[in-house]
Amino acid sequence: MQDSLAPLTLDGHYLLHEMFRVRRGEWRKLLEERRRGLAEAAAGLLAKMEKRPDGASCAVAILGQKADLMLIHFRPTLEDLHQAQQDFAGLELRDYLEPAGSYVSVVELGLYEMTLKIYSELEGKGLQPNTPDFDKALAEEMARQRERMKGRLTGAIPPRPYVCFYPMNKKRGEIKNWYAEGVRRRSEMMREHGVIGRRYGEQVSQIISGSIGFDDWEWGVDLFADDPIVFKKLVYEMRFDEASSWYGEFGPFLVGLQFSASELGRLLEGQTPALHS
Amino acid sequence: MQDSLAPLTLDGHYLLHEMFRVRRGEWRKLLEERRRGLAEAAAGLLAKMEKRPDGASCAVAILGQKADLMLIHFRPTLEDLHQAQQDFAGLELRDYLEPAGSYVSVVELGLYEMTLKIYSELEGKGLQPNTPDFDKALAEEMARQRERMKGRLTGAIPPRPYVCFYPMNKKRGEIKNWYAEGVRRRSEMMREHGVIGRRYGEQVSQIISGSIGFDDWEWGVDLFADDPIVFKKLVYEMRFDEASSWYGEFGPFLVGLQFSASELGRLLEGQTPALHS
Amino acid sequence: MQDSLAPLTLDGHYLLHEMFRVRRGEWRKLLEERRRGLAEAAAGLLAKMEKRPDGASCAVAILGQKADLMLIHFRPTLEDLHQAQQDFAGLELRDYLEPAGSYVSVVELGLYEMTLKIYSELEGKGLQPNTPDFDKALAEEMARQRERMKGRLTGAIPPRPYVCFYPMNKKRGEIKNWYAEGVRRRSEMMREHGVIGRRYGEQVSQIISGSIGFDDWEWGVDLFADDPIVFKKLVYEMRFDEASSWYGEFGPFLVGLQFSASELGRLLEGQTPALHS
Amino acid sequence: MQDSLAPLTLDGHYLLHEMFRVRRGEWRKLLEERRRGLAEAAAGLLAKMEKRPDGASCAVAILGQKADLMLIHFRPTLEDLHQAQQDFAGLELRDYLEPAGSYVSVVELGLYEMTLKIYSELEGKGLQPNTPDFDKALAEEMARQRERMKGRLTGAIPPRPYVCFYPMNKKRGEIKNWYAEGVRRRSEMMREHGVIGRRYGEQVSQIISGSIGFDDWEWGVDLFADDPIVFKKLVYEMRFDEASSWYGEFGPFLVGLQFSASELGRLLEGQTPALHS
Amino acid sequence: MQDSLAPLTLDGHYLLHEMFRVRRGEWRKLLEERRRGLAEAAAGLLAKMEKRPDGASCAVAILGQKADLMLIHFRPTLEDLHQAQQDFAGLELRDYLEPAGSYVSVVELGLYEMTLKIYSELEGKGLQPNTPDFDKALAEEMARQRERMKGRLTGAIPPRPYVCFYPMNKKRGEIKNWYAEGVRRRSEMMREHGVIGRRYGEQVSQIISGSIGFDDWEWGVDLFADDPIVFKKLVYEMRFDEASSWYGEFGPFLVGLQFSASELGRLLEGQTPALHS
Repeated sequence: MQDSLAPLTLDGHYLLHEMFRVRRGEWRKLLEERRRGLAEAAAGLLAKMEKRPDGASCAVAILGQKADLMLIHFRPTLEDLHQAQQDFAGLELRDYLEPAGSYVSVVELGLYEMTLKIYSELEGKGLQPNTPDFDKALAEEMARQRERMKGRLTGAIPPRPYVCFYPMNKKRGEIKNWYAEGVRRRSEMMREHGVIGRRYGEQVSQIISGSIGFDDWEWGVDLFADDPIVFKKLVYEMRFDEASSWYGEFGPFLVGLQFSASELGRLLEGQTPALHS
Repeated sequence: MQDSLAPLTLDGHYLLHEMFRVRRGEWRKLLEERRRGLAEAAAGLLAKMEKRPDGASCAVAILGQKADLMLIHFRPTLEDLHQAQQDFAGLELRDYLEPAGSYVSVVELGLYEMTLKIYSELEGKGLQPNTPDFDKALAEEMARQRERMKGRLTGAIPPRPYVCFYPMNKKRGEIKNWYAEGVRRRSEMMREHGVIGRRYGEQVSQIISGSIGFDDWEWGVDLFADDPIVFKKLVYEMRFDEASSWYGEFGPFLVGLQFSASELGRLLEGQTPALHS
Repeated sequence: MQDSLAPLTLDGHYLLHEMFRVRRGEWRKLLEERRRGLAEAAAGLLAKMEKRPDGASCAVAILGQKADLMLIHFRPTLEDLHQAQQDFAGLELRDYLEPAGSYVSVVELGLYEMTLKIYSELEGKGLQPNTPDFDKALAEEMARQRERMKGRLTGAIPPRPYVCFYPMNKKRGEIKNWYAEGVRRRSEMMREHGVIGRRYGEQVSQIISGSIGFDDWEWGVDLFADDPIVFKKLVYEMRFDEASSWYGEFGPFLVGLQFSASELGRLLEGQTPALHS
Repeated sequence: MQDSLAPLTLDGHYLLHEMFRVRRGEWRKLLEERRRGLAEAAAGLLAKMEKRPDGASCAVAILGQKADLMLIHFRPTLEDLHQAQQDFAGLELRDYLEPAGSYVSVVELGLYEMTLKIYSELEGKGLQPNTPDFDKALAEEMARQRERMKGRLTGAIPPRPYVCFYPMNKKRGEIKNWYAEGVRRRSEMMREHGVIGRRYGEQVSQIISGSIGFDDWEWGVDLFADDPIVFKKLVYEMRFDEASSWYGEFGPFLVGLQFSASELGRLLEGQTPALHS
Repeated sequence: MQDSLAPLTLDGHYLLHEMFRVRRGEWRKLLEERRRGLAEAAAGLLAKMEKRPDGASCAVAILGQKADLMLIHFRPTLEDLHQAQQDFAGLELRDYLEPAGSYVSVVELGLYEMTLKIYSELEGKGLQPNTPDFDKALAEEMARQRERMKGRLTGAIPPRPYVCFYPMNKKRGEIKNWYAEGVRRRSEMMREHGVIGRRYGEQVSQIISGSIGFDDWEWGVDLFADDPIVFKKLVYEMRFDEASSWYGEFGPFLVGLQFSASELGRLLEGQTPALHS
């Protein structure tokens, strides 16, 4: 097993995070009836997207000026994801929203420990990586893993009211370089990292997505909780573990309130939407 | 006690800093009577927010072009904070203000020395971290601390005329890395840092808020003083202590004049508001 | 052979990547007939560009808010490239598109191993670099290489539906510095890098272009595949090889769907275009 | 004397640099008479500001697209500074100017050598820093220094035609860290730095202002000269001294032509204003 | 001779690079006759600037979206440079151009080897730097050099069709720091750098300008060639020399086509201008 071995991953549904700011001045100029009509049309589309059985969407009201609204779309293919983006862009409401950022990624289950186990087993049987026999055995094992974890690959949206989203990288510095660490060392650090995560397991649901090759950071992290202070506690505590203290690089953080499509009108009319539960 | 132990914190009210620039050209085009009406409506909302018993707001006139106006909202929940943002956004005045930045955080009392003390005591009694007994004893102790410090958790706004706001991080470099230092070492550095702060205790009131998981820096710092030169003296002197010289990373600084809601009209009409006292 | 020897390269057609966002609000205000007319004129120009025998163009629908549309123009000269840019800018459709980034480069075949071989041979014959005899022999050899590889220098656009584009640099840090490594060491690392690339050879077609002296990064990379997950797998796996882990610096990533000119109207009307095949 | 001792400083008038771009398209649309009226009103305000006995303002025509106009306001208090900003913002001309940056700071005389001398003397008398006796003696000494240098604290604007402005920091790297150097070492480096400055003393007048706690860099530097090539010679030569080569970090540079209020109209009408002398 | 000695330089004409994007939507709305009138007026001004005997201007059509048009003005004084900027800004065409960047600098001939020679000679005669005798002898020598090189100080614009412009710095890192290297070491590295430059001497004409104290990078580089691939070859090869690999920092690159004033109308009407020769 090479030191530079990349971990195996299971990749599931594609994700698009879309952020928007409301053009309040323009919106306010519309007659109330017109506003209601545009909001209802948007809520109707969003309600359909919420209920999709295979890859749904959800809406989040964002705190602060970075965005007013964030949509997270999960879809089985990039074409479906593009069509979701097009459908929302096709709403008349969109003339009153301005783009405030987006993120393209794919649900990713990292299998560090499994990688070591599978490679050890296959190499124990005398198979060499990048040979047809090895690749076939590996593909069979990955198919088993995919079947076992399929429930976590489609990004079912956790029904919790608070949402935190941020992208991250593993550092490639001139001294500290995640990608130059050996696969066993990386696996140990990820295990330690996972221990903290599991301690918060009941309080936070997380969806990790990979974006290497798709967007500007390497991963996206979505956290869902019933109490927002848990976001701070979890991320702060993790910052002291080795995988994060030396190797974690964190992008902009967004925090907000998940709400259901039927609350979109209230948000646009200046109310805080009822929390999703 | 693990070297990588995260400090205990007490978390209080949530904060939103909202910055705005006045669209002077558009504002000037309004009739004086209309301007007066919009300013009065805004001042009325702000006056109510100033007087909230549980989590108030204050207004600051900013020097320079980064912003003309900064609002700081303290609220007990994220929903309350979102509603404050929505209420201000719902004013007709907002059509004449453009967003110029924001910051989401939560009042945080860091308890480095207390962390060492509590962990030492509990470990002295033979309790191990992350066991039910330890967690129960810790929760009881934290409840006592919370009760003892509750006055400092709701962010009562200091009645001083000058305000300085900036966000900051602790460095995670390839050599110098706050999060890789042992908890005792971090605690010592924070104590030294605190000594300087206390020397300025009479001249400056400060509110530290945590924003890990909420916004792009790790902490926000609000300073309030009766003489603005004290901001420079304090921040400059602290820059030489070890916690800051090697580990402090500082974001953009804003400085301005706190004023009460009744002065908002004067600010909008081109006067410097009477200072808050 | 000097340690600081630059690798020989074969340079082919010039490339311009142009990214655009659709001004949806303005576009929507047009009558349907007018929209159809503008889209048809643009599709007509694009169709001609797609069919150019010597340096064509292709169109990509981008995921997320970075851009809606990316064009890639390959042309034999900078003047031709400029005229392509001017022709597209001259469309009435352009009033409904806003610029969202661009990239200027030239198809580049890096010849690290060939460089070592040629220099060794010529020096073996007693020729010294930067002398007339050496330069003449080198020029003859390069002409042979150019003839041998000419099919790969004009950037024939791979007929695969998914496209990934990103720019990159080789790091020039204070410790890790690609340009200060000896030519043999660089050649070895590029060979290792190429081994991974070749394992993905059937799944991905790539076009490398050089942009030193032309744009802000040193290279542009265009990947074309039949399954977009391959972009992530390839780029992730490569990130662990030495040429990338220590020396690769990566710019923003764009991912999208290649489509043919005849689908442009559908894209503009809010549909996901049929995939190019 | 602690190694981490911060240098004593004398702080004088507050400064605001305001930069603007002319909205030429809008400006040109006005009738000439209207333009003349707006320019005269602005020139009138500026003329009054130029003549203020206690903290004046000056105007600079900037080269390049970063700004067309820079104002530098010196005022005894932050309120006065805010009122200057408000007064200029209240001009009708401001509808034809767009903000292009600003900088808030305070005239600062750094007293490195004096700091060592005073601390040595007081410690020689057996006084300990941060005790009442020490603080009293220090305050008396600082009052004497303030009296001695008061002419340099109010920022009298040098009557020279060329102006260069830039902000700067002292580096806090992971290896090279100004704030972690001992006070004697810092003092030596500042002395060496001052020697170069004094060699240019006749050719350049400089005003150093401190902005820690007020704006995003630590200091602002304004240089005034009779020949602009001197800016380059001075800053280039200084870049090789130790205080700058290892520790200086420089922000954006602006260079321009100082002019008097009566020339504002000519600037706005497309002429280069007569140089201030 | 001090190790920290700054190299002597000869400074010539001042330069302003001005970049613009065409507001195509607005431009297209004009009647053809009006467009022709505005283009002719601009071409007329530009033609006069092209023919100035003492400090001319030239125009470049830029590839990609960074800019459509770059002007380079050479003028003997900053006032002349400002007037050039004002004259172009005064054109009605400017309402259809938006600023896209600028750069202020001064033609600079670096004299590293000459510096060593002069200082050695003068010190050999027993003269000490920064004494009146030394300064007098140095001034006389510099006057001779200026006379000798005067043809290269006024920035005569090379009549070659392709232009590449980029700004650069010498690195001041924590380990690798150009400004902390001794003057002899710096001189050696510049000599090695110059050897490569001279090998390309027939293919490329270059103008180096200094911008320390004037703009945000330390130097600007303008390259002019008959074949644009030479820009890439030259800059790539130089990147491996020590002065560049460890110490060069490069800003954004622009590449384009030089054209004469009479072609401006064609550019604005959507054609690629005939190349300047």
